[in-house]
Amino acid sequence: MAEAVRHDKTARQLRLLSDALDSGRLGPVKRLVNTLSPAEIGNLLESLPPGKRVVVWGLVDPEDDGEVLVHVGEEVRESLLADMDTDEIVAAVEDLDIDDLADLVEDLPDTVIDEVLKSMDRENRERLEQVLSYPEETAGRLMNPDVVTVRADTTIDVVLRYLRLRGELPEHTDHLYVVSRRHQYLGRIALAALLTHEPGTPINKLIDDEQPAIDVNETDNEVARKFSDHDWISAPVVDDNNILLGRITIDDVVDIIRGEAEHQALAAAGLDEEEDLFSPVRRAVKRRMMWLGINLGTAFLASSVVGRFEGTIEKIVALAVLMPIVAGMGGNAGTQVLALMIRGLALGQVGASNVRTLLWKELRVALLNGLTLGAVLGIVVWAWFHDPALSLVIGSALTINLIFAATAGVMVPLTLKRLGFDPALAGGVILTTVTDTMGFLAFLGLATLLLLR
Amino acid sequence: MAEAVRHDKTARQLRLLSDALDSGRLGPVKRLVNTLSPAEIGNLLESLPPGKRVVVWGLVDPEDDGEVLVHVGEEVRESLLADMDTDEIVAAVEDLDIDDLADLVEDLPDTVIDEVLKSMDRENRERLEQVLSYPEETAGRLMNPDVVTVRADTTIDVVLRYLRLRGELPEHTDHLYVVSRRHQYLGRIALAALLTHEPGTPINKLIDDEQPAIDVNETDNEVARKFSDHDWISAPVVDDNNILLGRITIDDVVDIIRGEAEHQALAAAGLDEEEDLFSPVRRAVKRRMMWLGINLGTAFLASSVVGRFEGTIEKIVALAVLMPIVAGMGGNAGTQVLALMIRGLALGQVGASNVRTLLWKELRVALLNGLTLGAVLGIVVWAWFHDPALSLVIGSALTINLIFAATAGVMVPLTLKRLGFDPALAGGVILTTVTDTMGFLAFLGLATLLLLR
Repeated sequence: MAEAVRHDKTARQLRLLSDALDSGRLGPVKRLVNTLSPAEIGNLLESLPPGKRVVVWGLVDPEDDGEVLVHVGEEVRESLLADMDTDEIVAAVEDLDIDDLADLVEDLPDTVIDEVLKSMDRENRERLEQVLSYPEETAGRLMNPDVVTVRADTTIDVVLRYLRLRGELPEHTDHLYVVSRRHQYLGRIALAALLTHEPGTPINKLIDDEQPAIDVNETDNEVARKFSDHDWISAPVVDDNNILLGRITIDDVVDIIRGEAEHQALAAAGLDEEEDLFSPVRRAVKRRMMWLGINLGTAFLASSVVGRFEGTIEKIVALAVLMPIVAGMGGNAGTQVLALMIRGLALGQVGASNVRTLLWKELRVALLNGLTLGAVLGIVVWAWFHDPALSLVIGSALTINLIFAATAGVMVPLTLKRLGFDPALAGGVILTTVTDTMGFLAFLGLATLLLLR
Repeated sequence: MAEAVRHDKTARQLRLLSDALDSGRLGPVKRLVNTLSPAEIGNLLESLPPGKRVVVWGLVDPEDDGEVLVHVGEEVRESLLADMDTDEIVAAVEDLDIDDLADLVEDLPDTVIDEVLKSMDRENRERLEQVLSYPEETAGRLMNPDVVTVRADTTIDVVLRYLRLRGELPEHTDHLYVVSRRHQYLGRIALAALLTHEPGTPINKLIDDEQPAIDVNETDNEVARKFSDHDWISAPVVDDNNILLGRITIDDVVDIIRGEAEHQALAAAGLDEEEDLFSPVRRAVKRRMMWLGINLGTAFLASSVVGRFEGTIEKIVALAVLMPIVAGMGGNAGTQVLALMIRGLALGQVGASNVRTLLWKELRVALLNGLTLGAVLGIVVWAWFHDPALSLVIGSALTINLIFAATAGVMVPLTLKRLGFDPALAGGVILTTVTDTMGFLAFLGLATLLLLR
């Protein structure tokens, strides 16, 4: 039910905007758009077809352009960038934080990148180059080098005077970092601690050195996991020598968690999470064709099994009527196990140490479900075709297929992961190939053995 | 590839722990467990089969018990609570934050709840009762009433003295809230602003009144959306009269985002995100049976379509061999559209204003994919069965089914949502019922019309 009322606000804005666009009065559209945050504008642009998208993009306050570009998927970003000239892009991105800029830079044309680099001061250029020197999807790429550091051998009073002199702190600063003379990370001081202790308190009494720093080479998923396991708002990033390089903040982590979730949901259908809802037909066709082509190949495999039993089907046509049930139910049961396994693997909860216990549990579940549903199926088939032997065959075939489905549901994702493939992407295709093939083989094979005389 | 190395740490811990448990030496297990954060312990417990889970749960430092209970799924939580007596539970939960306690309280036996309430001081008991008075999955349930407020007519100096007197701030406090005499929310002051301005600065110069407060009745998904759209760390919660009631922090929002993602991934397979990986066989059977039973019903529906064409299949057995291809490919293509739609609906990007454009795009994609894949399928079938008319029939049937698949992929989730159902839960079953039924009907129907003389 909650689902139904969710995000009604976005839907309402979308409708308002759409009506205003249709009426051709751009004034109200512009006013509406510029009451939104950059992320909301991004979301809105993603939900507009290309024609309207270009119009609305033109109405966005140029000051927000950079932030909006950060908040849209890659495909939509490309379509927005295609609509800007070099000067506009440079103006849009030059005020972005280094981590956001690093995220964007890959999608910019080379000539634009040169211009952007030229427009930056030396310190920021070096910082950007440093961030870009780390591989994508690592902590190094996520971090922002803009951190506030203090020394241990001072007092709150001194720090407060320094901060007042410095003025603004970087966004989402909840801790200052304490570093050694060689810029090694020693620990952190909560802003709250600075506010709740007497001015004379020495800094080294307030240092929290319990929070481990993040290694610059950690993957972004590991980083996300740590943030949610420890309820962090920000965390320091260090290199192999414990030199402080930068800081990761929760807002970027939230984006990673959302992205990972979208990846898992869309990968199962062979889609990329960067896909534009309104991507050009030609591009959508090309991308989906590949996935459907793979599925066509596996469908031939299953059909070839049926082909082996043409003689049997010729004699008992009821088999053709019933065989999709056995195959399909195997697919459904296997998908349930697969979904649990993919979650377990993503959380690191499934491994060599517990896979046997898990398989054993799933086999018992499959056996009980198979016997129960097999009996139901047998009774319905008996009533339909008045053939007790056929009932026995289909009930047994269903049970056998559910057992294969459980085995495949546990073993396929585990094997894929061990081989370095993404279980969320390939798991479903392989699983249903197993359950289709085994379903047809068990049903038609048993029928050939038991029903033909 | 990142997938493959992800969360190796958890997997490694799991293996170490499992080996230590198998060897029966509990000392090392205890030491290992108590180096972990409560969330990590929760994750570890979830990945252990019931027998080992009880042993490890007994080794957890009682101080962490409450936090661990907060961090596990409902089913695992029940199994852990079953292993504790009333005193242990009361001791475990009495130090929890109000919002976490509210989250747990539903799963506690009534007698235990009474004891917990008795153990609390009056202020906290009233706060808990207030939070529990709001419906589940609303901002009211998520908020923590423990906030630090200041008045507008004062200076930084005074606030600093107040804070030093007060001592610790609640976790994740990044702003103090400014309230009127009647406790109405007026705006917020960043801790950073207190640190970077001169002591004499009046508070009302620092107030940020741009951030709208969250209404206590908003759904948790709306709250999560706002946090990620605005990059908030915390946000004030108010009632209809703008009276400040409490504060929501990003760590709880991250849990909602994760939960919502798990819900979408598991609902598609008819599973609950609270399901325990090692839930008792009987419980797992019962829950999955219902889903499989629904699928069995829809499978009969599709089979009954095939049953209408028994006469045709009797004459041309090749139809039985090939019909699963047409049905299955429709399911695959439809699932792709469905996955995009479910994401679009979850983000509020799809609605009445753009559904026609979207459907039109998907129909063109389906037509192009159908014609191409239909041609490929036709050629293979020609080579296999040497029957050009059969090739034409199967190619056309595939194209027709992909068009139905695209239509169902767009319309089914939209209709479900409009009717107040969860598209992620029911969308897949309805979609494949459409594609199976239409696939069989198109293929066998065309064959009856064109191939029988």
